[in-house]
Amino acid sequence: MAGPGPIALITDFGWRDSYVAAMKGVLVSRASPGARVLDLTHEIALFDIFEGAWFLRTVAPFYPQGTIFVIVVDPGVGSSRRIVAAELDGRFYLAPDNGVLSLLGELERAVSVENEAFFLPHGSTTFHGRDRFAPVAAALSNGTKIDELGPALHPNELVHLDYTPPRYDADRVEGSIVAVDRFGNIVTDIEASRIGFSPFAVRVKYVLIEHLVANYAEGAKLSDADAFLVIGSGGLLEISTAKGSASEVLHLKRFEVVEVMKRT
Amino acid sequence: MAGPGPIALITDFGWRDSYVAAMKGVLVSRASPGARVLDLTHEIALFDIFEGAWFLRTVAPFYPQGTIFVIVVDPGVGSSRRIVAAELDGRFYLAPDNGVLSLLGELERAVSVENEAFFLPHGSTTFHGRDRFAPVAAALSNGTKIDELGPALHPNELVHLDYTPPRYDADRVEGSIVAVDRFGNIVTDIEASRIGFSPFAVRVKYVLIEHLVANYAEGAKLSDADAFLVIGSGGLLEISTAKGSASEVLHLKRFEVVEVMKRT
Amino acid sequence: MAGPGPIALITDFGWRDSYVAAMKGVLVSRASPGARVLDLTHEIALFDIFEGAWFLRTVAPFYPQGTIFVIVVDPGVGSSRRIVAAELDGRFYLAPDNGVLSLLGELERAVSVENEAFFLPHGSTTFHGRDRFAPVAAALSNGTKIDELGPALHPNELVHLDYTPPRYDADRVEGSIVAVDRFGNIVTDIEASRIGFSPFAVRVKYVLIEHLVANYAEGAKLSDADAFLVIGSGGLLEISTAKGSASEVLHLKRFEVVEVMKRT
Repeated sequence: MAGPGPIALITDFGWRDSYVAAMKGVLVSRASPGARVLDLTHEIALFDIFEGAWFLRTVAPFYPQGTIFVIVVDPGVGSSRRIVAAELDGRFYLAPDNGVLSLLGELERAVSVENEAFFLPHGSTTFHGRDRFAPVAAALSNGTKIDELGPALHPNELVHLDYTPPRYDADRVEGSIVAVDRFGNIVTDIEASRIGFSPFAVRVKYVLIEHLVANYAEGAKLSDADAFLVIGSGGLLEISTAKGSASEVLHLKRFEVVEVMKRT
Repeated sequence: MAGPGPIALITDFGWRDSYVAAMKGVLVSRASPGARVLDLTHEIALFDIFEGAWFLRTVAPFYPQGTIFVIVVDPGVGSSRRIVAAELDGRFYLAPDNGVLSLLGELERAVSVENEAFFLPHGSTTFHGRDRFAPVAAALSNGTKIDELGPALHPNELVHLDYTPPRYDADRVEGSIVAVDRFGNIVTDIEASRIGFSPFAVRVKYVLIEHLVANYAEGAKLSDADAFLVIGSGGLLEISTAKGSASEVLHLKRFEVVEVMKRT
Repeated sequence: MAGPGPIALITDFGWRDSYVAAMKGVLVSRASPGARVLDLTHEIALFDIFEGAWFLRTVAPFYPQGTIFVIVVDPGVGSSRRIVAAELDGRFYLAPDNGVLSLLGELERAVSVENEAFFLPHGSTTFHGRDRFAPVAAALSNGTKIDELGPALHPNELVHLDYTPPRYDADRVEGSIVAVDRFGNIVTDIEASRIGFSPFAVRVKYVLIEHLVANYAEGAKLSDADAFLVIGSGGLLEISTAKGSASEVLHLKRFEVVEVMKRT
């Protein structure tokens, strides 16, 4: 690989406060000038670990080997919660041990980040993003190995989110809503390619949806009130509406159960 | 030029969803490490092609030769709408063929981007930003020529926005409001240097404005209710108010007709 | 140092308008490709010079030598207000002379930026961010010395904000609220390490707070209504609440006086 991998930031800090800027200062002070610092998002909802975890799971596969993801959604900052560094498929992850890494799949290696030699001196108990995550990410970018950061952890020891993946049966699939995007599209965790029957209909609460269209533009031609299904960018089933936010029109929110049933 | 031109992103994706981050992953995976990826904006209003087009027209002249603009404001994603790559004044533009390039002026070259060898394999029908725009932009940045991307188009074949440029007559100019900025300033498309008479007054709907000031600070000294004219950063006539948002105070919105008349 | 220092942007332009993008165009057109352009924030509240000044003061120490900070919070753009370039501790600052640099401490050197050779030709009176700040920052990044930019100023000649630093007495400290962050935490300007007595209580208006906790997670265990004190990321005393925004729950705003008193 040519040069150090990018440092990819995912936080719930927002752009207005000085937290992101302080982290970037530490990163550019300590990482080599060739290390790119990328803003993935700073708009994860406050303390929303699931949102951070789903975001990370969605984008990670598109990043190159050597990428160092820094995920700071950290309601437990300064408490006894661990910081973990982990590796999977040649990419590195640095995050509080609160479940934010638990949707990535089985991690290959993980350590508890405890070696204070890599932290800023005189750090705070309230801002590990700047005092611990940023300098450790810079060190990884400069070639430090993750086992220099602290004692190994078995990946099973990490905190896991309370999340049940979809269940794919021969005549029925049950999943859940995992996100609502800016366009109002309702994203489920159901992989369309794993639905083993056709045609199908989808039910969420009292809403039944049968139209499956190839893209949003086709769906937009339906009459205004109509909801439709589309296979979204991750191969996942989405629920959308011809006009407005599907989430608002249909009163559906994250974590609601989604049933896929054979249509007769 | 030293190294590849920057890749400049303009989208309506917002920062909260994972769309921008996924595009960046593809860009840094495929472009050379020397290629800078710049966030111009991700806050174009949803599906607002005119807003994207006006933004692009405003900033493009300030970018260096070799810049690759990637504009993803794409309500028709996945439909039969084309993707176009175009060149003008040494800069490159990659966008859906929906009019978003049509305020740049006469393009020198354009192609219909159809060569799937440059796309992500197994792409979606709902997220061309990640699956087509990003890898094609990376290819351009790596030296691919735009005529390798697909068949040539005559620039006249591209979709054009339904927009009438201002009309400059000897004693009257007629233009329109094209934007309202964060400060509430109302931006028109009328080039102040092309108004051939003086002094002048401006009328929009029932609002008549006569004060022309040199800068906002001078305007701010007027009594609170007073609206004033100023020559904005693009040489364009703007309407502003001493306090608050001119757009809200005056109840004026985008696309309203702006008349400039000789004052006697 | 390897290569040019980063160019670090702090503005009140927001991401939606084209102002930031135009500045970046000028920066990448004129600075060497090795110069990194960093978004620190574009979400300073409109024209809020104190907010910009506090942000800058908070993050500057974390940036490397050679960093060029460009701060554009500039209600007086185009008026007779000066543009200043200054140096302190090996870092450079470029800003309107409106007080936005006045919380950094005593500047080592300052000049009035007047040498038009460094400006964009045919610049506007309304957008110095693009026409003056950006090209001058690029010049600094390319090796221009600040005394080439214009005549020297004595740092005392610069505009200073009307701000009184905290007063630390033997049995009482008086400071003020300087910021409220996205999490609702109320940040004061009182350095905890300079409070010379213990235990202490804090009073702001009618609110009295006595709990001092080690981190937010510990505070979150208090009953919902309880406010607590915590030593924040800058070593500054903060007021927070177990749930919700402390600022909203306690009805406290920026600039309110904060008293620290010995508790008996």
